[in-house]
Amino acid sequence: MRLFWTPASPFTRKVSVAAREVGLWDEIEIVKTTWTLDWGYRTTAYTAGLAEANPVARIPTLVTDGGAALGCSTLACQHIDALSGGRLTPADPWPMWSLYAVADGLLEAHILMRAEFLRPAEYRMESFLDKQRDRIARCFDHIEAHADMLTTGADGGPPNLAEITVGVACGYQDWRDWLADFRPGRPKLAAWYDAFRQRPSMRATEPAETPEA
Amino acid sequence: MRLFWTPASPFTRKVSVAAREVGLWDEIEIVKTTWTLDWGYRTTAYTAGLAEANPVARIPTLVTDGGAALGCSTLACQHIDALSGGRLTPADPWPMWSLYAVADGLLEAHILMRAEFLRPAEYRMESFLDKQRDRIARCFDHIEAHADMLTTGADGGPPNLAEITVGVACGYQDWRDWLADFRPGRPKLAAWYDAFRQRPSMRATEPAETPEA
Repeated sequence: MRLFWTPASPFTRKVSVAAREVGLWDEIEIVKTTWTLDWGYRTTAYTAGLAEANPVARIPTLVTDGGAALGCSTLACQHIDALSGGRLTPADPWPMWSLYAVADGLLEAHILMRAEFLRPAEYRMESFLDKQRDRIARCFDHIEAHADMLTTGADGGPPNLAEITVGVACGYQDWRDWLADFRPGRPKLAAWYDAFRQRPSMRATEPAETPEA
Repeated sequence: MRLFWTPASPFTRKVSVAAREVGLWDEIEIVKTTWTLDWGYRTTAYTAGLAEANPVARIPTLVTDGGAALGCSTLACQHIDALSGGRLTPADPWPMWSLYAVADGLLEAHILMRAEFLRPAEYRMESFLDKQRDRIARCFDHIEAHADMLTTGADGGPPNLAEITVGVACGYQDWRDWLADFRPGRPKLAAWYDAFRQRPSMRATEPAETPEA
């Protein structure tokens, strides 16, 4: 497999953590991508091979051994899960997918904020940033209210894809100084994440700025 | 099941078409949502129940009979597919998902353009719109180059989820007057869509403006 990757993308980190948790990371050839800081509002020079594999020109893109380019992190995670024999999803997956979609929508709000901050200042809308902050707060509140679903490791297996996505969302929130601490008022999530972030898969994938070239 | 819905959303249309194609539409209670035209850049008053079911506050949100709120159209389509016994996905699904992700990324470019046009004019960036137009053109070119995958009905079954998503993308492109005709230079896709749009599932879901209240 080949993965178009950067260390800054939380969607990419989901795929990396998932692959590491089921021992498939070494099967993946990493293609490091670079992005100029105008990526959010301009067609930029894409890393060689990216737009050819996936015309959406977005990361992550996971190219399977069969040659299918999966340009969506959810589908890429599902492919990793399928290769692992379903170790990242429970037998009745739908409650897990419900929580996953909340954490994934939270990540999308993160990236929308990042793109808004990268716009020239005169085109930036404070109300847009507020909308995403409101969304992020609602999602973290929902996760706190459903913290009984965060049972990582209780069955002796790897975390499921919802737990991985929640962990990546907490990690992104901690990384960017324009995002508030998610812990106040959310003690269950805070305690869970404090343990989750120590997993080798999380420690090996801590976010860092994407190289511009 | 319950589906938070509007007639303008192509992501919602995917779910509607999928459910109709496998005879599950009548199992779904539709919750019509309204959106003020500042939805793209402000926290608005969400339709009753939406943000409570899905804190991302986005449509479509499909609430399963088991009570799982799926706030992501891909997961909602996968749930419909699972209920149908997998009639919307082939045995080796990954090439289909690869094409699906391209068509879905195209829909995302549509919605990003729509949201940009709804911003106050002074906050609108022409280069952002151009970036999405470039993405849309690359995606349609990719679909034309892979038109041999569009074999709707050849096996006697319903279309697969990639075909549904491609059809919805063509339909949105035709609907909005700020999007160019996708047909020039793409004769295979044009011919396929000309037949696909006649399906009862497509005719029953033609897009219309979302009510503001």
